[in-house]
Amino acid sequence: MTNLYVIKIGGNIIDDEAKLSSFLKSFAAIDSKKILVHGGGKLATKLAEKMGVEQKLVDGRRITDAETLKIVTMVYAGYVNKNIVAQLQSFECNAIGLSGVDGDIILAHKRNHPVIDYGYVGDVDSVNTPLLKNLLEQNLALVFAPITHDQGGQLLNTNADTIAQEIAKAMSDEFNVELIYSFEKSGVLLDVEDETSVIQKLNWENYQNLKKPSPPSGDGSKIFAGMIPKLDNAFAALKSGVSKVIIGKAENLSALIAGTSGTTIENG
Amino acid sequence: MTNLYVIKIGGNIIDDEAKLSSFLKSFAAIDSKKILVHGGGKLATKLAEKMGVEQKLVDGRRITDAETLKIVTMVYAGYVNKNIVAQLQSFECNAIGLSGVDGDIILAHKRNHPVIDYGYVGDVDSVNTPLLKNLLEQNLALVFAPITHDQGGQLLNTNADTIAQEIAKAMSDEFNVELIYSFEKSGVLLDVEDETSVIQKLNWENYQNLKKPSPPSGDGSKIFAGMIPKLDNAFAALKSGVSKVIIGKAENLSALIAGTSGTTIENG
Repeated sequence: MTNLYVIKIGGNIIDDEAKLSSFLKSFAAIDSKKILVHGGGKLATKLAEKMGVEQKLVDGRRITDAETLKIVTMVYAGYVNKNIVAQLQSFECNAIGLSGVDGDIILAHKRNHPVIDYGYVGDVDSVNTPLLKNLLEQNLALVFAPITHDQGGQLLNTNADTIAQEIAKAMSDEFNVELIYSFEKSGVLLDVEDETSVIQKLNWENYQNLKKPSPPSGDGSKIFAGMIPKLDNAFAALKSGVSKVIIGKAENLSALIAGTSGTTIENG
Repeated sequence: MTNLYVIKIGGNIIDDEAKLSSFLKSFAAIDSKKILVHGGGKLATKLAEKMGVEQKLVDGRRITDAETLKIVTMVYAGYVNKNIVAQLQSFECNAIGLSGVDGDIILAHKRNHPVIDYGYVGDVDSVNTPLLKNLLEQNLALVFAPITHDQGGQLLNTNADTIAQEIAKAMSDEFNVELIYSFEKSGVLLDVEDETSVIQKLNWENYQNLKKPSPPSGDGSKIFAGMIPKLDNAFAALKSGVSKVIIGKAENLSALIAGTSGTTIENG
């Protein structure tokens, strides 16, 4: 099967012009089918401040009210998406900017939570793979903003990690998919304070062991709590047919793909 | 040849939620290949005000400085484009939102004017028709935001009428193209104050006669000066292979297509 890279780029990279540009140069150089998924870094929060729109957080999660949805749609699907595509074009990578609403690619429904109303947040129902496949066959790199829709005319804000995972899973029937989460850290760290403590390989068994609370006599080294949802998602992706998940530093994209940097998560 | 409708929707319709929705319902019902080109109405100006970005006008034309480019990219390619696509999806019209940068569809260069620096304004160089054709063949309606790029990583703001005209011209080699300018007026009016004075048919010869200043003894009826650039563009499009240009009220889209409303401009 043809290789397909689905690469999520973390927010901190979006916020740093030089790092973003260097990342996009590496992305442009990948000689395979490829999909990039991005969010908007701190740009949406900054624009909300400028516009005097108050950001509501519940349990540390942003509530997407109507004004916030407008802002994230503008920033993610407009400003960030089109600037990334323009830069990729300048690096001779023919890219097309998309969101989940375009071509009905990602259908979602408004999150229905028993306690918290997250507002216009979408949970993914399905991915329209034939259109993605066709676009990839035209040698286009696909660049996704994390906006979906409910087919009733409502746009929905969706977590970019989730978008990357859902696309990777859906494309696994027809491609050998590697899912890469690239961000500011060097990989999954044994000690969150130590960038050299990267766990190079992780499988389900040693993940379960690492998740166990350290015994009082232990050295206290365990996986940073913030990584747990990303890793749970990674293993769920493997279960659904993704061949490999790699987590590592965006600046090392070429090395992540070569398997010489970051954490590689595989079955078995 | 297969019919293709290239339809520009005027700013005043974008600003009116009910009118926009009714227009999109009619657009969704068109049983042919179709492309919609939109701008952003007053939304960009309103956002600029909210953000405290001063709008510079020279000779009534907006200067696109860096901040304004950011705003129009967010509003046109983000908010307006994705909301139009989401609404079309809800009307069972599978649409894809695009700008000129996506798939390298519209290449432009920064306007080089001897006197006025228009800022980040793009004049169109070329249109990538194979990708447009491929997307149309997948039964997608294409929805264009008027943002182009220079292949050097720079986004450019481009007049939406021009985008519609350039796409219509470029697609004429492979399709029987009708170009429709839909806006708030009923068509080209003999008397700008009288909505019933629509000129139903216009060819080059009678356009030249109507453009002549009325003699002192005349009744003063002549084409409104604001329509001249649109009409000059219309005749240029006909010269480049577009089969018909129709100008009329967005609310009457179905009738414009049927040829029972608005002004039809044809060769001969």
